[in-house]
Amino acid sequence: MAGENSSVTAEPEKERLLNQHKEKHFTAGDIVRDIIIGVSDGLTVPFALAAGLSGANASSSIVITAGIAEVAAGAISMGLGGYLAAKSEADHYARELKREQEEIISVPDTEAAEVAEILAEYGVEPHEYAPVVNALRKRPQAWLDFMMKFELGLEKPDPRRALQSAFNIAIAYIMGGLVPLLPYMFIPRAKDAMVASVVITIAALLIFGYAKGYFTGNKPVKSALQTALIGAIASAAAFGIAKVVHP
Amino acid sequence: MAGENSSVTAEPEKERLLNQHKEKHFTAGDIVRDIIIGVSDGLTVPFALAAGLSGANASSSIVITAGIAEVAAGAISMGLGGYLAAKSEADHYARELKREQEEIISVPDTEAAEVAEILAEYGVEPHEYAPVVNALRKRPQAWLDFMMKFELGLEKPDPRRALQSAFNIAIAYIMGGLVPLLPYMFIPRAKDAMVASVVITIAALLIFGYAKGYFTGNKPVKSALQTALIGAIASAAAFGIAKVVHP
Repeated sequence: MAGENSSVTAEPEKERLLNQHKEKHFTAGDIVRDIIIGVSDGLTVPFALAAGLSGANASSSIVITAGIAEVAAGAISMGLGGYLAAKSEADHYARELKREQEEIISVPDTEAAEVAEILAEYGVEPHEYAPVVNALRKRPQAWLDFMMKFELGLEKPDPRRALQSAFNIAIAYIMGGLVPLLPYMFIPRAKDAMVASVVITIAALLIFGYAKGYFTGNKPVKSALQTALIGAIASAAAFGIAKVVHP
Repeated sequence: MAGENSSVTAEPEKERLLNQHKEKHFTAGDIVRDIIIGVSDGLTVPFALAAGLSGANASSSIVITAGIAEVAAGAISMGLGGYLAAKSEADHYARELKREQEEIISVPDTEAAEVAEILAEYGVEPHEYAPVVNALRKRPQAWLDFMMKFELGLEKPDPRRALQSAFNIAIAYIMGGLVPLLPYMFIPRAKDAMVASVVITIAALLIFGYAKGYFTGNKPVKSALQTALIGAIASAAAFGIAKVVHP
């Protein structure tokens, strides 16, 4: 880890950031991010759908059916969709890696010129960056890593992460979606259940929004209010539109 | 643009990639990405929800009500949610920029050591990277850009992109969602409408999946099949679950 080499960098948070940045293993940060992605939509869309149907005079039974069908579909769409997107990113990385590898072998002068170009952007003069370019030329593997990161801005993805992420997002979506639907499972009159659903879901949105702000380094109170506001706007829109379509 | 400086880089695609990477303006690539995000879920979830409700013997009227309410809620959740996420990324970048700026002023030796650390990772020796470190030290603005990019891996986000992205994703979701719902607006018996919905939505998923593969550099046919498969799995799950909940 970088900290062992450098007694100069005395900032633990920066070390952590550096290390997180270098080591793209599955981290707690990834799990948090997946949960945020899943719960954000999971708490919002099923809630709004249920509210909209209640406003259009559907029974609790229809609301639950629609809600659970939506949660299942949403979890699969987000989960499988996210998995495929991550796999396609991994394939993209592998293709770019192969291409860079070939270029380093076949047109090393071009690649060396690209390193020069990258450093020149920061005002580094040819006589200043030449030793670096030559150092890289002597170490093809390091050179390859350098091009992947600094020319193409690509990090090596962890293949297990794709599957794990997809699963986490889907589960988070389901957990989020069940919260607003619970009252409808116990209260037969949808319009009464909706009141309970609004109360517990807004509360859940505030708590989740606060936690989201805390974990992403944003003001938690502001985050809580914004998250609850999105839920409120989405459900108001669903409610209004459903009333128009099915008065 | 890089091409004017370098007669050695004779690869137009790499130039394009380099330039896209440097210039984080709003590009056609961003619009395509937003459309993919919106349509992927938009074509899948409302379709599955409608199929599920049809299987549970709801009328076309209920299916449309639920479908349109879900599309409204989904578009708002994705759109507003995406906007806030982008804004929070922009705030994060601004905070990190400010902190790096302060560190460059207050603890320049630490920052110089970090540059050394970054280059050392690629096997560059101290006598080789020292000129680069010194060059950066003389140019605080360039040094700051270097740290933001190579230490923290952050690109300067364009503030207008956040709003534009959110809007694009929301519109794409709505366009996607309306496709499977159209038959229900013309065919009163939901189970008949569902057949038409399945046909046009699977067709739309195949076409969209093909285009997605083409634009993201993945095999288009494989992408078409995967996209249609997700839609099929999501709707089968919704259909099955709805039948269990509401036989």
